[in-house]
Amino acid sequence: MARQKILVAQGGGPTAVINQSLVGVIQEARRFAGIDVVYGARHGVRGIINEDLVDLSQETSVSLEAVAATPSSALGSTRDKPDRKYCQEIFRVLKAHDISQFYYIGGNDSSDAVRIVSEEAASVGYPLRAMHIPKTIDNDLVGNDHTPGFPSAARFVTQAFMGVNLDNAALTGVYCAVVMGRHAGFLTAASALAKVFPDDGPHLIYVPERTFVIESFLSDVKACFEKHGRCIIAASEGIHDDKGEAIITRLASTVERDAHGNVQLSGTGALADLLCEEVKSKLGIKRVRGDTFGYLQRSFAGCVSDVDQREAREVGEKAVQYAMRAGRDGSVAIKRVGDYAVRYELVALDSVAAKTRVMEDGLIAASGNHVTPAFHNYLRPLLGSGLPQAARLRMEPVAKVLK
Amino acid sequence: MARQKILVAQGGGPTAVINQSLVGVIQEARRFAGIDVVYGARHGVRGIINEDLVDLSQETSVSLEAVAATPSSALGSTRDKPDRKYCQEIFRVLKAHDISQFYYIGGNDSSDAVRIVSEEAASVGYPLRAMHIPKTIDNDLVGNDHTPGFPSAARFVTQAFMGVNLDNAALTGVYCAVVMGRHAGFLTAASALAKVFPDDGPHLIYVPERTFVIESFLSDVKACFEKHGRCIIAASEGIHDDKGEAIITRLASTVERDAHGNVQLSGTGALADLLCEEVKSKLGIKRVRGDTFGYLQRSFAGCVSDVDQREAREVGEKAVQYAMRAGRDGSVAIKRVGDYAVRYELVALDSVAAKTRVMEDGLIAASGNHVTPAFHNYLRPLLGSGLPQAARLRMEPVAKVLK
Repeated sequence: MARQKILVAQGGGPTAVINQSLVGVIQEARRFAGIDVVYGARHGVRGIINEDLVDLSQETSVSLEAVAATPSSALGSTRDKPDRKYCQEIFRVLKAHDISQFYYIGGNDSSDAVRIVSEEAASVGYPLRAMHIPKTIDNDLVGNDHTPGFPSAARFVTQAFMGVNLDNAALTGVYCAVVMGRHAGFLTAASALAKVFPDDGPHLIYVPERTFVIESFLSDVKACFEKHGRCIIAASEGIHDDKGEAIITRLASTVERDAHGNVQLSGTGALADLLCEEVKSKLGIKRVRGDTFGYLQRSFAGCVSDVDQREAREVGEKAVQYAMRAGRDGSVAIKRVGDYAVRYELVALDSVAAKTRVMEDGLIAASGNHVTPAFHNYLRPLLGSGLPQAARLRMEPVAKVLK
Repeated sequence: MARQKILVAQGGGPTAVINQSLVGVIQEARRFAGIDVVYGARHGVRGIINEDLVDLSQETSVSLEAVAATPSSALGSTRDKPDRKYCQEIFRVLKAHDISQFYYIGGNDSSDAVRIVSEEAASVGYPLRAMHIPKTIDNDLVGNDHTPGFPSAARFVTQAFMGVNLDNAALTGVYCAVVMGRHAGFLTAASALAKVFPDDGPHLIYVPERTFVIESFLSDVKACFEKHGRCIIAASEGIHDDKGEAIITRLASTVERDAHGNVQLSGTGALADLLCEEVKSKLGIKRVRGDTFGYLQRSFAGCVSDVDQREAREVGEKAVQYAMRAGRDGSVAIKRVGDYAVRYELVALDSVAAKTRVMEDGLIAASGNHVTPAFHNYLRPLLGSGLPQAARLRMEPVAKVLK
């Protein structure tokens, strides 16, 4: 068998560990005698049709390990989704460079791109092994216990809420943070792991799996503020009303939409400001502050789960092993088999592609504004080792002398 | 000499290391045979007048060390600034509890509170040792090389910009982040330390020490975008026009003001959204994203400079030593004496109180939209050990076969 040339690329939103998967592919591929060189495409599938390729076999292992520990997509990314014509362009370039395997690291949209490429290749008889390697902070790939990138983003959210809970306990008021997540509330729900003491925030968690009713929100906040003298809220950017309309569209005078008609939710503080304004004006609470975690939650340098790092590396390695041995295209999936242990499986592309997992009912509290213990059990091992521990003074009161 | 009772409190905005100073006071005080017990006031001077005191001598050293490593103000904080009447209430409570020393950990406003308490005590013949312990993420206390809390917040900003620079390199566009700082741009300027390669962001840094001209901003962004195909901007929340009016007031329909008439700058994403809207509408750039670092930058659990931790502990310890031995009230100041080493000094309260240090001219680039190498040299040792290192692929290009 002639030695193969393979191509790897990264698609969709970056994560803190997506480069682990990239380096997993490169390093594992070079262990196979049947693989000659590893090319990378810059900025995803767009880099293929632009013939913008780099030779990753010329990277040193020292440099690759440094890149693996660096957040975001080292090859660059794209939001492009190939159609039939786009695929023909892809094949033209792959053929010109004798590429026989294509690895695409990404989320829903990227897995769908791999599915289209795989099906088109088969239909035109183009000999190509197409593999999808999972990645998404949204944790919304079906058939996976969780997806690489999510645990590190969840850790960021947990650490952020640990801090803002303490900050808000020092200078009290209402605090509302908006977390990424259009359809799946996993990342917002991760805020719950910040709680140590029963009166710690977040006190209220709103995910897109439940309809957001502004009147219920206000009465929840009012009750919490009366009980604790403060209130910490975590809200998904994708919260929506009973018609499915995003809450953010009620405020923004002009909303930005992508090619698929989706409203742009990230990169603006508008939703947090809207929710704060509601609390201020309707409940008459004075100190109300809102933050939007924005891009920090998926790219912050230096906040990563070591469990996530290892698994992201492994899905890259497994993809190469499956490509060389399984004899079929597919997507690498993570299955939980212990507390805590995982194994990997190669699943069919069409079982993952363009499907969206959301939080299972058992993970969301019946109240609809918090999570269950099952969610804590699910997430805790993913956050990794060395999580900061928030401590309190015991506060032995001094008896009053005056009054 | 009778054994003394002392009182410690925390004022103003929390930081990641303000509890180190608190624990420094408690632990050092208990080493002095002349000190009997250490009380804490909850929520700063307000806790004194409310007689809301706790006995910190009953805390264990294990618990205190855990609290020292926890962000935010463990005793709670306040924005109250005592006047003469407020001081009389303070003395009434201190007298009732036989308190002879008062330690207040805080920034500008807190040092001014200590000055007022100190002067009022002297004028009414109340025997009190009043000590100010520095703390502020704004780094705006005069007479200090830097202030505890700033290095950790600066580290957060540096790590955040490392990440967003990499994120923006993967999915290109314009990115603008708003950083805390009403009058002093130190924290915003810390973004510069995220740069590794010459084309890394932040490409533009706007601090309140320079007048913000929207037309210059737009031409700066345009030039950067044309050169790099992307642009990363760091802007202080306090940027203002040539009349001193905050840029944020141009947008917000209603602005919140504090008791001193200051516009509320934090806890809203409005300024970042305004700047993004300008870039979108005036320059026609499509992908423009804005973030506001908000409360994360001062309270995020797990992002701290070890240098900052040590110094915050030391200013607490030194305050007790000065109180017991120097025979006068004052503020503990940090002086840099080596590269890198510091010593501490007890300076007069009125040399610090209610004054605001801003960035020295030599730290700001002549262009007014970036920092100088002198600023890099100033900040680098403060960020502490173990800062993440961003790495790139070497990207050896594959020769094009087609076209």
